[in-house]
Amino acid sequence: MWRFITHKTRNLITSTITKTTSPISSSSSTTTISPLTAPLRFLSTLQPDSMGSDYSSTPVTIDTINPKVLKCEYAVRGEIVTLAQKLQQDLKDNPGSHPFDEILYCNIGNPQSLAQQPITFFREVLALCDHPSILDKSETQGLFSADAIERAFQILDQIPGRATGAYSHSQGIKGLRDTIASGIEARDGFPADPNDLFLTDGASPAVHMMMQLLIRSENDGILCPIPQYPLYSASIALHGGTLVPYYLDEQTGWGLEISELEHQLKTAKSKGIDVRALVVINPGNPTGQVLGEANQRDIVEFCKREGLVLLADEVYQENVYVPDKKFHSFKKITRSMGYGEKDISLVSFQSVSKGFYGECGKRGGYMEITGFSPEVREQIYKLASVNLCSNISGQILASLVMSPPKVGDESYESFSAEKEAILSSLARRAKTLEDALNSLEGVTCNRAEGAMYLFPCINFPDKAIKAAEAAKTAPDAFYAKHLLNATGIVVVPGSGFRQVPGTWHFRCTILPQEEKIPAIVSRLTEFHKKFMDEFRG
Amino acid sequence: MWRFITHKTRNLITSTITKTTSPISSSSSTTTISPLTAPLRFLSTLQPDSMGSDYSSTPVTIDTINPKVLKCEYAVRGEIVTLAQKLQQDLKDNPGSHPFDEILYCNIGNPQSLAQQPITFFREVLALCDHPSILDKSETQGLFSADAIERAFQILDQIPGRATGAYSHSQGIKGLRDTIASGIEARDGFPADPNDLFLTDGASPAVHMMMQLLIRSENDGILCPIPQYPLYSASIALHGGTLVPYYLDEQTGWGLEISELEHQLKTAKSKGIDVRALVVINPGNPTGQVLGEANQRDIVEFCKREGLVLLADEVYQENVYVPDKKFHSFKKITRSMGYGEKDISLVSFQSVSKGFYGECGKRGGYMEITGFSPEVREQIYKLASVNLCSNISGQILASLVMSPPKVGDESYESFSAEKEAILSSLARRAKTLEDALNSLEGVTCNRAEGAMYLFPCINFPDKAIKAAEAAKTAPDAFYAKHLLNATGIVVVPGSGFRQVPGTWHFRCTILPQEEKIPAIVSRLTEFHKKFMDEFRG
Repeated sequence: MWRFITHKTRNLITSTITKTTSPISSSSSTTTISPLTAPLRFLSTLQPDSMGSDYSSTPVTIDTINPKVLKCEYAVRGEIVTLAQKLQQDLKDNPGSHPFDEILYCNIGNPQSLAQQPITFFREVLALCDHPSILDKSETQGLFSADAIERAFQILDQIPGRATGAYSHSQGIKGLRDTIASGIEARDGFPADPNDLFLTDGASPAVHMMMQLLIRSENDGILCPIPQYPLYSASIALHGGTLVPYYLDEQTGWGLEISELEHQLKTAKSKGIDVRALVVINPGNPTGQVLGEANQRDIVEFCKREGLVLLADEVYQENVYVPDKKFHSFKKITRSMGYGEKDISLVSFQSVSKGFYGECGKRGGYMEITGFSPEVREQIYKLASVNLCSNISGQILASLVMSPPKVGDESYESFSAEKEAILSSLARRAKTLEDALNSLEGVTCNRAEGAMYLFPCINFPDKAIKAAEAAKTAPDAFYAKHLLNATGIVVVPGSGFRQVPGTWHFRCTILPQEEKIPAIVSRLTEFHKKFMDEFRG
Repeated sequence: MWRFITHKTRNLITSTITKTTSPISSSSSTTTISPLTAPLRFLSTLQPDSMGSDYSSTPVTIDTINPKVLKCEYAVRGEIVTLAQKLQQDLKDNPGSHPFDEILYCNIGNPQSLAQQPITFFREVLALCDHPSILDKSETQGLFSADAIERAFQILDQIPGRATGAYSHSQGIKGLRDTIASGIEARDGFPADPNDLFLTDGASPAVHMMMQLLIRSENDGILCPIPQYPLYSASIALHGGTLVPYYLDEQTGWGLEISELEHQLKTAKSKGIDVRALVVINPGNPTGQVLGEANQRDIVEFCKREGLVLLADEVYQENVYVPDKKFHSFKKITRSMGYGEKDISLVSFQSVSKGFYGECGKRGGYMEITGFSPEVREQIYKLASVNLCSNISGQILASLVMSPPKVGDESYESFSAEKEAILSSLARRAKTLEDALNSLEGVTCNRAEGAMYLFPCINFPDKAIKAAEAAKTAPDAFYAKHLLNATGIVVVPGSGFRQVPGTWHFRCTILPQEEKIPAIVSRLTEFHKKFMDEFRG
């Protein structure tokens, strides 16, 4: 991210320099230079561009690429992660070279990278669908559960020609969409139409598709929570729109206030922004809150009243850890309010990457779109068609997560045990980490009601803020870098998700293996104490 | 596609109508209307828009979506395919309702949808990687080949934590990229760097990524062959750039002439277009030609001279059917000319969807990028990161196709037999269909040297052209629709790929099962004779 920032700064500087300024070559001598050109020179030392570099005979430079790409940021895989990968390599090449013996990735919701095991039933079915010719072999009975075999047969029957290697319908295999629609109906108690479902390679391409549909120019705005998951800011930047922020209220457990939505909408409108949609992430990422029903109804009324598409990121729908909260889909909320297909435009995003199963690498997911006219839907269909279809294994997995083993199925007990073990452990890990964070000096942390993250607020001493300034970085990035270098723990600075100006946070997943949590807590606590001692002033 | 066209027409009409024209409701009476409003009314009968429709209280209409989406066309899954799906349902609901008993999809390169079986070794490895816990079981020895088991172990060892369900590095799992790089080296005889590889969900997202990087505005142009695969026109439209056409010469077997490139580049420059890249599809889609080495060297020199990125679509690299032609990658050509990493910007696209294996549904593929400065590569990396990673099964498959069983491996003989059976059959099918097409009145067809398609030219009688005009459609679409209705054979009209104005073609795959080819030939021949008899004059 540092490079992106420096580049933007350089552009800013370049654009303020008069055209008569001669290009500064990196080999220029140490003669006195004006204050205006000094920072430019400093930056070009940090990041040589194509001027005078070895790539001078190639046609594409950082200054001639699409500026929307330059503008896009994606902190979840940003500078801190690059540093972490470097340290990991160091540890491999020179064991003992750092004050820790492993890197603990708490930067991204990627459970299986931290040794969470896949759900057996799901993987049995996937393996059988990948290699159907073993279905009839006798050895298969000994290797796979009976209901996995049965399910694989059912799924193959749903695929035209049983061809798991063929492109499917652009929206996904119809039979799998039928299964998913039934799963949505069972979840919500309201009908779901398989023709409303678009199966996608994870939720990200679905979000891009909707942004691409809605954004015409920088005058089109999308209301997004702050803090937000950077997919939204990145996608809006790439499609050339304007992110209209609404702030979640940290004091009330990251509450989503309608008055704040109204205020921000009004402000955006006064600047000539045509606000087209509202993004709601429930359960929240990075904030972990679970919305209450009454709040959801108010959000629906707000969208209805203001003519906004409601983009509901519901990928953490199965990750709720507190007994006083429950996930309700926005589809269920709208239908229970009496709103039908033609009353409100709603898109719900779901993914196989999250939930208790955490199958991130399979890139499965779907969006359910309701309240769009046939001619607009046809345009969405066309967008889906340009990439032909999402991957079939991901499609199959999406059908499995929405229709897991039922009571009486051979796998039901083992499936339930695997699910319960993961979810209860996540709840314990969330609580332990939350308590540990709240015991740190200057740190407050809302509970993770759902999702996979904690997003603590850190009240930095002035001296730390000044030290960060001197290091030309944000205080939370400064903290995260020191934390990584001292402990091997990787968190994402809050600035990657945006935050109320002047407040500082970081996002930490609750995903490390449970037996590693005590060590993480003690390393973090020890680091934090030293950090505060150093910078207390 | 009809709707897209009618919509564009309507926009055109709407924009020429003075603002005082009152909206025409679909329930308006039969009173006399002016000629100007007549077509508007006609079109709104065909396609009711949100004015007065049931969706009037939802916020998004066809007139308020991103116009780039409207502009994008994708004929491979357009109107003809929708009609084919309808007919297929008819046949299911009312057997005997049409003069054929099955739909023969020759519209898309989707081999496994037409009963081509997957390569056994590939599927064995995928199944084992999906469910690694069976790797150590004794029954597994009886079900899977020894080298598939060994390969699965190797691949799992290449995946950090053996986690096939985790997000990978944004460019793909490093170990798999190592394998692919070795495969490229073995193919070309020149080094390949795993850090140059970006693994993607099929080739399409890779093409989008490069278009997104290069296109800043409609003043940026991309040179594309005409005829072209509509992914390119669609992607350029979606990213708001300008497609700069260069025509392949049908008379010389779809020859790619440097003089034509120079002419079109000059013309585009004279219009103020900044041409940024040249797309070359080799072997050709829809045209099936395989470029000669000397021609490729000239293309490389042209890109070098003119400062263009060479975007090489090489997804059909394993599909060459004629003994006098051989595939050479552009990477090999540039390196053999003495050009290195810093001399020319080249992107090679590869996919697991094509080749003899045809694993379209697995959505695997990669791009190899060379000749981009570190800071530009960092931007490409960021684009890849926003979607986290491509699906792991697709990544594994990409490594398998670039590193299949070798002499001495248990699966080598069966693998070679499967490969040889598919490729030789495709060659026979290509020849049979080519000969059949060339025997039709008014039809000429270049040979399919490679890829999966034939692209015959039809010289329509005037009466057919007039009948098409009366039906408000292009002659080739008119022909394709009649062909489908009469025979169940689905082809794509040439207009979907663009063609020299005034010439008419269709694209037909060579993929139907070999035993069905004689019936296709006789149905097509019979239909064509009747069609010509009806419209000859």
